[in-house]
This record gives sequence, structure tokens and C-alpha cells, in this order.
Amino acid sequence: MEPSKRSEVRRLPERGDYDPQTINSILDEALICHVGFVADEGYPVVIPTIHARSGGTLYLHGSPASRMLRSVKNGAEVCVTVTIVDGLVLARSVFHHSMNYRSVVIFGRPREVDDPDEKMRALEAVTEHVAHGRWADARLPNDLEFKGTTVLAIAIDETSAKIRTGPPGDDDEDYELPIWAGVVPVATTFGTAIEDPALRDGIEAPGYVTDYRR
Amino acid sequence: MEPSKRSEVRRLPERGDYDPQTINSILDEALICHVGFVADEGYPVVIPTIHARSGGTLYLHGSPASRMLRSVKNGAEVCVTVTIVDGLVLARSVFHHSMNYRSVVIFGRPREVDDPDEKMRALEAVTEHVAHGRWADARLPNDLEFKGTTVLAIAIDETSAKIRTGPPGDDDEDYELPIWAGVVPVATTFGTAIEDPALRDGIEAPGYVTDYRR
Repeated sequence: MEPSKRSEVRRLPERGDYDPQTINSILDEALICHVGFVADEGYPVVIPTIHARSGGTLYLHGSPASRMLRSVKNGAEVCVTVTIVDGLVLARSVFHHSMNYRSVVIFGRPREVDDPDEKMRALEAVTEHVAHGRWADARLPNDLEFKGTTVLAIAIDETSAKIRTGPPGDDDEDYELPIWAGVVPVATTFGTAIEDPALRDGIEAPGYVTDYRR
Repeated sequence: MEPSKRSEVRRLPERGDYDPQTINSILDEALICHVGFVADEGYPVVIPTIHARSGGTLYLHGSPASRMLRSVKNGAEVCVTVTIVDGLVLARSVFHHSMNYRSVVIFGRPREVDDPDEKMRALEAVTEHVAHGRWADARLPNDLEFKGTTVLAIAIDETSAKIRTGPPGDDDEDYELPIWAGVVPVATTFGTAIEDPALRDGIEAPGYVTDYRR
């Protein structure tokens, strides 16, 4: 995929990655994204929300009353950023401290999804993004809920990933310093499920809950 | 703290929290933030970066070549958003699925930190934000590195937190459904440190690495 002027990684270009498989894997692993848009008054707003990818499309959803969805559904520009932190990079020098991370930035103008089939598939994708298998178990949206949800689609084409991996990179003369250096791995982990206190007796947690993984 | 029109939580206002202690604790626990700004061409950009809080000020830092820092250091408006995901909320209905989370949004116009003392303290705060104790161990910035780092300060006053906790909230009639419901806890965890392959012999990892916590 060729980057556009704005999606090209210009700072530390060696960290840029434009491979759709790489970009998709980051989008799929990350639980949430941060959506940036420009408010009517001209200032930037950044909102965390759940996303889901289906093919080359990223879906966002929410209440029709959501300010973010109201602001961008008529084709305003957005920037969707997804970030996974993989490690704290402790160099010998303060200056070379860093993080290992995988991030994706997508620029685009969302369209509101009106087609009922696409909209239902998008809601399925969002649900499955959070818990794979949940769509088959949960009560599906009724008419009121379906109409009471706004779904936006953004083409994943003006996009790039930025990735840092590996040990710290210190200045040559600093390697002799008696200072520990290395990486503290960072991960998102999922604990033992807490069942709803109002859960009916005799309902076992499904496998995608007891053995949750991404 | 009284919210402004734009920092007030209007969607689901019961989730809004304006207590500075609550806001500070979220800013301090979160490893990174997402900074939104408006590019010269008018479109939104969202960049992940490390932040640090010192009193009522949030500091960002980076290379003078960073587009984000260049764009906002002359007083352009930013929105800094910090998000900690605490749980996946699986309701009986797809519609009531949610997440437990703690987020903070700060609106403001950064000022570039020119005063050398404040700038050095800000770099210390950023280093200590990532690994408490590191500033005392690492090689401190030399003149070239100090001048080659841009530091921005944002007053934490136009801000709000938004928090969801607890079990799912389903519609009354759905509690009888034979569907499991509950919360899958989500946490950021820190693994066993991987020492730099180039580490000199005989240097032990410090306690803030072997027993890393936030």
C-alpha cells in the first residue's frame, strides 16, 4: 500500500510499515481506538471507542446522541489511531528511553451505514471484535435498538503502521556505563470473569469468557 | 473543579467525574496518552505519546522535528485523552455490551517550556512516569540532548474524567434469558525484564525493573 503525504511515517521512517497484513493485525488485536475529529468550533476532540475491522473497512458505532458520531457522520474528516504498547525501553541515557509499540493511524471521511444488512454485519463485527463467539449467544438487537445505533464505516486505505521493537539503542560511548538497560515487557491480560450478581442459576460461562484471548 | 462546556460529560452524565484526585490518579496510572491536534490543512491528527503530570501541569516531550510538537507548540489547541480499559462488559443483549474504563480528556493550548529548570524537571517527570527511580540511575541529558528535546506544558484545568464500573445493565425482561453475563477483567501487566544483549557483565536489574508496578 502506498502511503499518502499525511499517512507516511516521516519521523523515524524506518519504523513505518505499510503492509496491509501488518496493519490489519494491529487493528484486530487492539481492543479500542482513539478517534480524532474537529469540533464545529474548530478545536480538536479525541474520544476512545470500540472499533472493528471487516475486510478493508473499519466500523465505529454508538448512540445517535454521541457528539463524535454526530460530528463526523456527514463526512467530516477523522483520524483513527490504535496503539498497542509492548514494552518499556530503558536505555542507559535518559535521552534514548523509548517504548516498544505497534500503532496504526487511519485518515478518512466516514460514511454512515444505512443498508440494514451491512449495518447488522457491522454490529456483529464490533461484538465479535470484543468477544469472539458472543454474537451467537447474546440477544440480538431488536428494531428499536437497531435504529437507536449509529454505525460509521471508514475505508482503511489512507493508513500506516508505526512499530518499534527490540532492545534500547544507546550512544556508542554509553555502553561502558555501569547502568542496567533492557526492556520491560508490557501486555494486556484478561482475568477470571466476574459473573453478573443477577445471573440466573445454572448458567456456565462460555469458553470465550473462561479462556479469553485475542 | 467546574467543567467547561466542552469538557462536561454530556452523554451518560452519571459517568462524569470532575474530582482532581480522580483525574490525577488516571493520568498517573496510564502509560501513554493520545494527543489530538488540527493540522495546518485543517484535518485532525491523533498521535500516541508519553505524558507526565506534575501538580496541575501535564508535560509532553519529543523531538523538535516531531510534527505534533511543531504543530502545537505555538499555542494551537490540543485535546489530550488518556484511557484505561478495566473490563469487557458482556450483557445478555448485544445492545447493552460495554466496557469498564477510566478516561480523562484535557483541552488546552500548550506552551513550550523554555526555562531550563522547569524543562529539566519535566524530563525527570516523564522519565519517572515510565519507571519510578530511573532518573537517579540513568545518564542525564547532556547539553545537546537537552536542546534537542522539545517540552510542552498544558494546564490541567479544562478537563473531565469519564468512568464506568460494575456489572452489565440489561433490560428488565432480559434477566430471565439463559445467557451468561458478567465482566472479563482487563489489566496492563509487566513481564520479566529482558536485559539488553549488550549489557556489561555483572549489572543487576534494579528493583523498579524486577518488581515493576504502577
